[in-house]
Amino acid sequence: MLVVMQSDATPEQIARVLDAIRRVDLTPHPLPGATRTAIGITGNTGVVDTQALEVLAGVKECIRVTKPYKLASREMHRDDTIIRLPQGEIGAKTFTVIAGPCSVENEPMVMKTAEFLMSQGVTFLRAGAFKPRTSPYAFQGMGIEGLKILKRVREKTGIGIVTELMDTEYTEAVEDATDVIQIGTRNMQNFSLLKRVGKCRKPVLLKRGMSATLEEWLMAAEYVMAGGNYQVILCERGVRTFADHSRNTLDLSVIPPAKTLSHLPIFIDPSHGTGKRAYVPAMALAGLAAGADGLMIEVHPEPDRALSDGAQSLDFPGTEKLLSQLRQLLIVLGRAM
Amino acid sequence: MLVVMQSDATPEQIARVLDAIRRVDLTPHPLPGATRTAIGITGNTGVVDTQALEVLAGVKECIRVTKPYKLASREMHRDDTIIRLPQGEIGAKTFTVIAGPCSVENEPMVMKTAEFLMSQGVTFLRAGAFKPRTSPYAFQGMGIEGLKILKRVREKTGIGIVTELMDTEYTEAVEDATDVIQIGTRNMQNFSLLKRVGKCRKPVLLKRGMSATLEEWLMAAEYVMAGGNYQVILCERGVRTFADHSRNTLDLSVIPPAKTLSHLPIFIDPSHGTGKRAYVPAMALAGLAAGADGLMIEVHPEPDRALSDGAQSLDFPGTEKLLSQLRQLLIVLGRAM
Amino acid sequence: MLVVMQSDATPEQIARVLDAIRRVDLTPHPLPGATRTAIGITGNTGVVDTQALEVLAGVKECIRVTKPYKLASREMHRDDTIIRLPQGEIGAKTFTVIAGPCSVENEPMVMKTAEFLMSQGVTFLRAGAFKPRTSPYAFQGMGIEGLKILKRVREKTGIGIVTELMDTEYTEAVEDATDVIQIGTRNMQNFSLLKRVGKCRKPVLLKRGMSATLEEWLMAAEYVMAGGNYQVILCERGVRTFADHSRNTLDLSVIPPAKTLSHLPIFIDPSHGTGKRAYVPAMALAGLAAGADGLMIEVHPEPDRALSDGAQSLDFPGTEKLLSQLRQLLIVLGRAM
Amino acid sequence: MLVVMQSDATPEQIARVLDAIRRVDLTPHPLPGATRTAIGITGNTGVVDTQALEVLAGVKECIRVTKPYKLASREMHRDDTIIRLPQGEIGAKTFTVIAGPCSVENEPMVMKTAEFLMSQGVTFLRAGAFKPRTSPYAFQGMGIEGLKILKRVREKTGIGIVTELMDTEYTEAVEDATDVIQIGTRNMQNFSLLKRVGKCRKPVLLKRGMSATLEEWLMAAEYVMAGGNYQVILCERGVRTFADHSRNTLDLSVIPPAKTLSHLPIFIDPSHGTGKRAYVPAMALAGLAAGADGLMIEVHPEPDRALSDGAQSLDFPGTEKLLSQLRQLLIVLGRAM
Repeated sequence: MLVVMQSDATPEQIARVLDAIRRVDLTPHPLPGATRTAIGITGNTGVVDTQALEVLAGVKECIRVTKPYKLASREMHRDDTIIRLPQGEIGAKTFTVIAGPCSVENEPMVMKTAEFLMSQGVTFLRAGAFKPRTSPYAFQGMGIEGLKILKRVREKTGIGIVTELMDTEYTEAVEDATDVIQIGTRNMQNFSLLKRVGKCRKPVLLKRGMSATLEEWLMAAEYVMAGGNYQVILCERGVRTFADHSRNTLDLSVIPPAKTLSHLPIFIDPSHGTGKRAYVPAMALAGLAAGADGLMIEVHPEPDRALSDGAQSLDFPGTEKLLSQLRQLLIVLGRAM
Repeated sequence: MLVVMQSDATPEQIARVLDAIRRVDLTPHPLPGATRTAIGITGNTGVVDTQALEVLAGVKECIRVTKPYKLASREMHRDDTIIRLPQGEIGAKTFTVIAGPCSVENEPMVMKTAEFLMSQGVTFLRAGAFKPRTSPYAFQGMGIEGLKILKRVREKTGIGIVTELMDTEYTEAVEDATDVIQIGTRNMQNFSLLKRVGKCRKPVLLKRGMSATLEEWLMAAEYVMAGGNYQVILCERGVRTFADHSRNTLDLSVIPPAKTLSHLPIFIDPSHGTGKRAYVPAMALAGLAAGADGLMIEVHPEPDRALSDGAQSLDFPGTEKLLSQLRQLLIVLGRAM
Repeated sequence: MLVVMQSDATPEQIARVLDAIRRVDLTPHPLPGATRTAIGITGNTGVVDTQALEVLAGVKECIRVTKPYKLASREMHRDDTIIRLPQGEIGAKTFTVIAGPCSVENEPMVMKTAEFLMSQGVTFLRAGAFKPRTSPYAFQGMGIEGLKILKRVREKTGIGIVTELMDTEYTEAVEDATDVIQIGTRNMQNFSLLKRVGKCRKPVLLKRGMSATLEEWLMAAEYVMAGGNYQVILCERGVRTFADHSRNTLDLSVIPPAKTLSHLPIFIDPSHGTGKRAYVPAMALAGLAAGADGLMIEVHPEPDRALSDGAQSLDFPGTEKLLSQLRQLLIVLGRAM
Repeated sequence: MLVVMQSDATPEQIARVLDAIRRVDLTPHPLPGATRTAIGITGNTGVVDTQALEVLAGVKECIRVTKPYKLASREMHRDDTIIRLPQGEIGAKTFTVIAGPCSVENEPMVMKTAEFLMSQGVTFLRAGAFKPRTSPYAFQGMGIEGLKILKRVREKTGIGIVTELMDTEYTEAVEDATDVIQIGTRNMQNFSLLKRVGKCRKPVLLKRGMSATLEEWLMAAEYVMAGGNYQVILCERGVRTFADHSRNTLDLSVIPPAKTLSHLPIFIDPSHGTGKRAYVPAMALAGLAAGADGLMIEVHPEPDRALSDGAQSLDFPGTEKLLSQLRQLLIVLGRAM
């Protein structure tokens, strides 16, 4: 349910509508827009008396949202969501690159990568301190020590940090160290974790589950948003199919319907999508052409010595070349990086 | 790596081998068998000096385990794992039925179901207090209150309780209320949760992820076992495919290879597998014929009034009929329920 | 559209209805039943004037069929289809085994297999004279020479022959040599071939396509039936999924909905389904328990010397053991072989 | 097996090598290149005496091809295959658009579409005279009459024709009417049909099967090439997965590995891939960015009145807009249309 306020509605009128919604045990979500404010309502909206709301001062109309996801739906929020961070805006006409090593291995390599990226105009670094690994005997990441390295790298270079949170227990530590909290593919339906980051103040990059439908993915975003954190970035990273020519099947075809059904920015991760360095640039360009709002790629100073996922990481010259190709395409597509 | 002790090895000899393993920073897992004890070793076993172990008193031989999963592998543990609970044994020649409602809705309905099941010789009740729901606006389960109901039902009827743990935060509460801790399909690779239940003393029923390969599933079991909890039950509940004639595609063909590669008991859940009540009995019988060690099915006193998953729940008469068919098949197959 | 005749309708009354249908450029399909005849109508039935038909003498009622498949639908044909062949009946309460080598390799081996099977009470032999092979450089089957061998084997042993037709060109040759014409998984939507066998007088065993939905499969059967050949046997042989523990994912869960939606007999082929000999018996038993009407399995006198698919073929002792297990299960399930 | 000739080898020397290969019952395939000729050998090459070939005059070296596909492999043919037709070249640095209605509905609409396309610089028309339809009761195409229309349209406008062949029976009629013979997704492993078009003189556009691996697809191309027709164009049109946001999952990630493993041109069909008009342009641009050699799209003068697949067809203005976007991208990518 969406309450659309008149363009000249006063803060007091808005406050009175919020109160009215809370009084019937529902949750109001104020959604300020360019020309007017709207108020999303979640909870058991089947019982809402829309007439009682429509007679309140400043209310223009009440609209039922037909999708099972509400706050993530474009029905409720027509304009593209733009996430504003010190390192740049994400969404709408911008194309954002997030790059860096699979995992934090040591401070010099992360620093070196951050400095290289900043020199290239890439203002977001990805690097995992906590790593979800299929085997309990594989390197599990540097943990808290890795977070400290990321903080120091941010302090020194100013680069924005994107790192994965795997466990509610470390939420505060990760939120403190990062600019964007990443939720990994294996946790896309870890509902406790989604609810927890719904309480965070940092944007959440939500990877698509390996076999999640678009609706399930948007419902996972809805879990975060229902908690009050409306800054969600979707990230496609390949799905499970019978195909064996790549590690996963990067589903670029999800981009147009995702942009139609939702106002949230959508990124692609061709590194995990293909699993092979040689195929990353082509799929990165394709993702941009398909309408993605950004790219998450693995970059490593020495890919062949990486502790994890080296086979899918670009080296620095490869990254430079890809960035230059992306920039050329962006001009034609009328977008900025 | 597996150290096989001689059949007449003394406890002191075993203790000395355990010490020797710990001294080189590896983890020993004593695995008592029918005729002799074996000691699994996990950690970076590439560096193990097998000769140094083989000269210790009481050691018969050292065997390298070729699979990425070690403790879950039949190479390390030849005999079928049998899980012994007050309500009965699970695994080997036994066929175990776990039945009950999708979620704890209120005390009378759970009590009624438990009494019905016990009267039918079914000694394990499934019921969710915490429910993983695709939508944040759907009924999320009764939570702690639901666990209290389950405890009272166990006290009164003696039935064994199987209930899902979704969050490390509630581990102690769930472990206290249950006889078997269930890990749901969406959490099969929630590694924090797997590590946490690896520290529990209660058996873990581990549902297969929606698009998990057999190897990934056994690796998830390995996470639990590596923590010291060797009582893991696998449960197939249907995988994601293109097929649309059922809610998921129940992959019975995973049973024979799972039994070949691993010593862990494997159950099937035809309720989630098919999503349709009418198809549950046929798939339950097929699961038994395919070699499953048990069955997890949804049973509800009034399926059409269930708060969740009613369409796939059997009513009491339907359950009785299925149990009678299962018993007839069990006789032919030389197994007991 | 279905015209149900009164139970005492005369042949003349039926003939008059057939005429009336043909006059409006539609195709009538007389479907004699236990108590009354029904007449299926295919073509653009949107234009049928049901009242004009209902007033004809002997007509009880006209029923619209809501499924896109008509003749294959249980709406149009309530009773299970039974296919009557000299070697036995297929469908309803019977369980039929079709066994034999992947391909006709030479006369002695086929003869030896046929004699073994007949001695075991298995009255249908499968063996390919034309082989669909992924590689153009692999053994493509003996062709016409293979058909001649099959004819001689049938003459000598009386066994029923099931062999694959890959090409409209060889339809007559295959129809002449066989008792059941097999359409392979790769040709499930080879519509020219389906139309051609719709003109044959021999039953058609129609394998499910590797990624066919149940509806597409029944529509393929409809192609055959629309041509006038109502004797179609469905055969599930495994579908394509991400799973890698078996060659294909044998989808036993398709059996109950197939039996609900259609009256056609359904078989399973666990040899192609699993691709591994050791897993064939478990899946054969599971298929029977799930409600299949029959089994198609690969049996070879010397599997390790087979020219194709040896890894999934049972040897004679393995076949004997499986048949004995199937017979025990059949008794419990109240069915005959 | 590949015999590489010296750059100055004479036609006589080449002829003698061909003879030598035929004498040992193998098939030679002369593959003229920019600087030298190579000769592919197919058949049971395990027995080839490479030394006997290497001593022949003009032979530079013999190379074993490690892939199961030989003629389709880049190992055997390093340069991109270029297909030269009166209407333009396909492959290498060119980007080719094939557009038109799903099916030939009548002469004026095909003529109108062809004239529109030619005016836009699109020199290939697709239109089906024979239509593979899931239902036997759906419009099956105009057949031979449709082919006649296509011939007249070609005569009048000069546009190149691409149309589907479904049945060996109509091979000559289709080959006569068309410039490129299309093999549909359902017939990708109709080996009889593949062998038949291997004897044709017209290029073959081979759509990927709905659940075909890349290797199976290249093996299907190999069937055509083994017959002597080396002009094969691959066309990705979406595969079957669990995803339900589009009709099929357009697998753009197959493009880079296909170009690595094979020298054949690869097209994409975003119309069938997405099934929804609104998503076609984004995926067309993405396909170009991913490295495709061309595009096959459905264009209809009045999509909402199309007899088949109207929902996925672009109208004329939509096509014009897409072509303009493609052209801008092509400039940046350094390619021509």
